[in-house]
Amino acid sequence: MRAAVIGAGAWGTALAHLLASNGHEVMIWAYEADVVESINGDHENRRFLRGFRLDDRLKASSEQRGMLRDAELAVFATPSAHLRGIVRQGRPYVAERADTTIVVASKGIEQGSLALMTDVVEEELPASAVVALSGPSFAAEVAARQPTAVVAASRRDAAALKVQEAFSNSTFRVYTHDDVIGVELGGSLKNVMAVATGIVEGVGLGFNSRAALITRGLAEMTRLGVALGAQPATFAGLAGLGDLVLTCTGSLSRNRSLGLEIGGGATLEEALAGKETVAEGVVTARSARALAARSEVEMPIVEMVNRILFDGYPARQALSELMSRELRPEQDQ
Amino acid sequence: MRAAVIGAGAWGTALAHLLASNGHEVMIWAYEADVVESINGDHENRRFLRGFRLDDRLKASSEQRGMLRDAELAVFATPSAHLRGIVRQGRPYVAERADTTIVVASKGIEQGSLALMTDVVEEELPASAVVALSGPSFAAEVAARQPTAVVAASRRDAAALKVQEAFSNSTFRVYTHDDVIGVELGGSLKNVMAVATGIVEGVGLGFNSRAALITRGLAEMTRLGVALGAQPATFAGLAGLGDLVLTCTGSLSRNRSLGLEIGGGATLEEALAGKETVAEGVVTARSARALAARSEVEMPIVEMVNRILFDGYPARQALSELMSRELRPEQDQ
Repeated sequence: MRAAVIGAGAWGTALAHLLASNGHEVMIWAYEADVVESINGDHENRRFLRGFRLDDRLKASSEQRGMLRDAELAVFATPSAHLRGIVRQGRPYVAERADTTIVVASKGIEQGSLALMTDVVEEELPASAVVALSGPSFAAEVAARQPTAVVAASRRDAAALKVQEAFSNSTFRVYTHDDVIGVELGGSLKNVMAVATGIVEGVGLGFNSRAALITRGLAEMTRLGVALGAQPATFAGLAGLGDLVLTCTGSLSRNRSLGLEIGGGATLEEALAGKETVAEGVVTARSARALAARSEVEMPIVEMVNRILFDGYPARQALSELMSRELRPEQDQ
Repeated sequence: MRAAVIGAGAWGTALAHLLASNGHEVMIWAYEADVVESINGDHENRRFLRGFRLDDRLKASSEQRGMLRDAELAVFATPSAHLRGIVRQGRPYVAERADTTIVVASKGIEQGSLALMTDVVEEELPASAVVALSGPSFAAEVAARQPTAVVAASRRDAAALKVQEAFSNSTFRVYTHDDVIGVELGGSLKNVMAVATGIVEGVGLGFNSRAALITRGLAEMTRLGVALGAQPATFAGLAGLGDLVLTCTGSLSRNRSLGLEIGGGATLEEALAGKETVAEGVVTARSARALAARSEVEMPIVEMVNRILFDGYPARQALSELMSRELRPEQDQ
């Protein structure tokens, strides 16, 4: 089938390459002219996914128009803060085909509205079938055909199945799911936990602390999810636990690196300076705090990250407050 | 209070040191004469926890008699295969005090009987109050006072609270729990998953595969637990997810190292040769398979590990069979 991938960061590029190697006709939209050139000229995205030979059939463009008009499948993989604006740019072309399935690969919670990424797309393209794609998947490993398992979640079963069929192959396994809220919250909140993990490591704590943080992090993610209508089991799955473990323990993610610098004493400004790519966890931390407040859910780790990033608390102090909470039965935490 | 720690491996030694630094009068029993000497003479367990200065008040002995007779708290931290025999040796002395609380720090499932470690102790010492202590806790980090959180699970609330009080301090946090089966299964089955993780890494797969394996591993641990009467939430806690994440992603555990060698092509005999310490996951893999069969629970990862360790399946083939299971909704897995 014909597919358009909007956003040529590492993840968008890996997904476009995957679809192309599965035999689909794929166009990818890149904001940066050099990325378009590099993909079309050298079959490589030298800026965001260096070192991987991309499928010859994958073509890039800086215009959404043609590719969206032709696509049965449109994948959005932009930074979360830009998703709404970019979907609005593409809207006139998507609308011409009512049967287009939209895959949302961006992970985040919109500032201000506190909307999830599929909510943003559904607001802008109300007629479309929207699917959230999420799970433990470093882009470079997907590009290298390392075995990977993710979920495709939609309120419309047929759309989830279509995405499963389009993306799956022997090394990339897509499981369908119907809990869109849970899948999206897992994918976005885990970035805040990755920042927290980085802080813990940056301050000099060990693996025991990291494991406890991940455990309690998943518990508070689940609490918020349940308050917002998600299924608790989703957080025990690939898009919850799986992605959380990957991001907090795999090779250094941007969010964990940022936490590491901050745990080591850098301010947020210092840690952000000169970075080309976005650490989604910073924006998501703020949105998650607001969402927790609105839902009256306690999220002590999200709160700790916010205090350190935005309220000027020293990392050590905020962490030790977190650790010294009163001793209670585990299930009451 | 007076405490006896039976077993001077890394974990027993770290727990004894912790109790001593909390101000308790602690004796530790070691099987090896050189360990007794090293602890009493140099305040170090050079064989099993090298490099840590142990509390001066900690004394070692190769006789259980005196220390058990005086103890209000007895901690068993032996390899799981030796627990029953060692408890039997100590039984005549423990029985003299009915109010002795027994802490079980060994993790495993007894071969043949398929009994959990607290079951073994309760069978041998039916009058005692038994508490399972488990959670993400590398011994060396506990000895180094790195922040650590664990659970103390007992059917008797008072016993769990007593253990919480004895072990807790500002860096070692003990949460009480009442799901003994869940807590023990988490601690023992995670060793099988660590072997599986090592195999995945040894074969050359990446972080995405590891995260998927951990996720599906926790799901099958939970399934078995529920079939045996445990609470599913326990597996999302410190003794489940927490310990699983630690063992599968922290610095190389014995179980993960063994898996790594086997994934790299070694046979079980080759991987076990010349090792002084026990990789609990090997014995537990067999017991878990038997327990799964008896409970009619599907445990594909436990099955894969058994096939590779004991049935001569090549690691790559067993893994690829695991990966290529039919695509279904995630929740049906």
